[in-house]
Amino acid sequence: MLKNDLILRAARGEKTERTPVWLMRQAGRILPEYRAIRNRLSGFKELVETPELAAEVTIQPVDILGVDAAIIFSDILVIPEAMGLTYEMVEKKGPHFPKTVEKISDIDSLKVADPSDLSYVYEAIKITKKELNERVPLIGFAGAPWTIFSYMIEGGGSKTFSKARKLLYSNPEMADKLLNMITDSTIGYLKNQIKAGADIIQIFDSWAGVLPPEHYSQFSLKYISKICQAITEVPITVFAKGAWWALPEMVNLDCRTIGLDWNMDVATAKNVLKDKTLQGNLDPCALYGSNELIKIETKKMLKGFQGHPHIANLGHGVYPDTDPNKVKYFIESVKELSTS
Amino acid sequence: MLKNDLILRAARGEKTERTPVWLMRQAGRILPEYRAIRNRLSGFKELVETPELAAEVTIQPVDILGVDAAIIFSDILVIPEAMGLTYEMVEKKGPHFPKTVEKISDIDSLKVADPSDLSYVYEAIKITKKELNERVPLIGFAGAPWTIFSYMIEGGGSKTFSKARKLLYSNPEMADKLLNMITDSTIGYLKNQIKAGADIIQIFDSWAGVLPPEHYSQFSLKYISKICQAITEVPITVFAKGAWWALPEMVNLDCRTIGLDWNMDVATAKNVLKDKTLQGNLDPCALYGSNELIKIETKKMLKGFQGHPHIANLGHGVYPDTDPNKVKYFIESVKELSTS
Repeated sequence: MLKNDLILRAARGEKTERTPVWLMRQAGRILPEYRAIRNRLSGFKELVETPELAAEVTIQPVDILGVDAAIIFSDILVIPEAMGLTYEMVEKKGPHFPKTVEKISDIDSLKVADPSDLSYVYEAIKITKKELNERVPLIGFAGAPWTIFSYMIEGGGSKTFSKARKLLYSNPEMADKLLNMITDSTIGYLKNQIKAGADIIQIFDSWAGVLPPEHYSQFSLKYISKICQAITEVPITVFAKGAWWALPEMVNLDCRTIGLDWNMDVATAKNVLKDKTLQGNLDPCALYGSNELIKIETKKMLKGFQGHPHIANLGHGVYPDTDPNKVKYFIESVKELSTS
Repeated sequence: MLKNDLILRAARGEKTERTPVWLMRQAGRILPEYRAIRNRLSGFKELVETPELAAEVTIQPVDILGVDAAIIFSDILVIPEAMGLTYEMVEKKGPHFPKTVEKISDIDSLKVADPSDLSYVYEAIKITKKELNERVPLIGFAGAPWTIFSYMIEGGGSKTFSKARKLLYSNPEMADKLLNMITDSTIGYLKNQIKAGADIIQIFDSWAGVLPPEHYSQFSLKYISKICQAITEVPITVFAKGAWWALPEMVNLDCRTIGLDWNMDVATAKNVLKDKTLQGNLDPCALYGSNELIKIETKKMLKGFQGHPHIANLGHGVYPDTDPNKVKYFIESVKELSTS
């Protein structure tokens, strides 16, 4: 029995005694306690693939920052790797795929991920659940198929994602084939995360914002919808960064919560997404301000979501150079201001 | 007397015999004729600063692609340079400022650009006008103050622009001071472009999309509005990439045309911006498709804007690896389909 199940109740649309709060990217880079562990290792991937250590950094923000949920320390790119496309994490640069998908035969050499492939993630979840000892829920996650697809085609980040987007015009059948393989891989992966103990699932569509609305429906939401339909065990949160135009269509997703970035208009979202819980959406840069400013901005944000089921968060992952004390102050402010 | 003034008439909201068309970034990288000139020089900046050559590459797309306007070949970063902050253009990487603005004393060492500083731009405009010989109008341009400010703080492109955004929370007075200096520099610069012969002005707010709506009003639109008020000689186009939420507020700008990116919903924009001409907004990736697909997508776009004053364009600068023949096909399709 969870001692603090605020996030799960908020996700179900229930009234809660205060607004629950966690941060995207809370496990990692901002905490000195994380960097101490990370610096002992050969690289980011060793940490992701070592269940005991992944569990340890997953729990750190619960102990240190006082968040209402843990999120398993991992990376969305474990899925392409399990499909046969290995990634590297280049220090200060981000992910890089030495091999990318260029032609249909490249897809033929990939497979739908085997659930047993990612046992290190499930192991990390089991250890985390045991060590959390029911204090707060554990969030599992995966990338949305479109975002994973983009990485597999581009080989890394991109300003325009024009290679990935090109394929949608030049070879939509090939795109559909790869997107379906990613979708099936993701469904199996998430089901295993839930079996291992994940209490709630978040789907990150980090590159949603680069698609024109029509393509977003056809090449992203369609596959997210398949995942939401397949995952019935726990509540799902969908965070499609930058896809403000898609909110009306997201009403129909079989998910409980929609994440909002800091550009999105809360009043509109409340109106459009009447039956969904909303998550977000403080500008991560607000945490660069004084405590006084953080409190003002947090108050403003909470007021914006008032009267609607809400899970407080930033509108994006916390930026690496954010002072952990400011993060703590934000979390405390949510707790204080949402009860008064 | 301009022989083809379609764009100017469309900007004034007049009905035109067909939809005029040009492309952002039409002068440059996509044309082999451009690369032939560029390869003879030491770098991008030499081309920007050599009026005869800048004029030559400005006119190339009029001759080769058949666009309805030329846009002067230059860079938005000539303004920070004229203010005292030199930029470099790093091949395949983009702009880089060896020195950036970090503290208030860094601003004190800058000046409001002197109109005489950028005489190479005005010279290029004069030569272009002469060589164009009234065939089509010439577009002058500048970056929006927020976008210029971002480069001056960040020192280059960025995924999150968190340094520039940080300042808005941590020191809004300092931000305002620098933004005002950029605004004043830009007004003088644009007035001189017009004196030299620019027939229409476009303001590019390339990094509009990273700001939360409230900050966008306060730290971007406010200064764009000042510029629009000061420039009364020719029609102005404002292109705020990614700032979909700002469209209702942009109604009040003293500009004639609003540029739309490929994410923006045309029906909404038509409704919100009843009195403005709209420019855009084909997904630049559509030009990677077959001619057949380009025609279908162009038709769809034209239909979307039907009944509203419209200047056809892409929703972003044309991507560097686009086949010039596809660009030409797009331009021909607009001309053909908008008359039928």
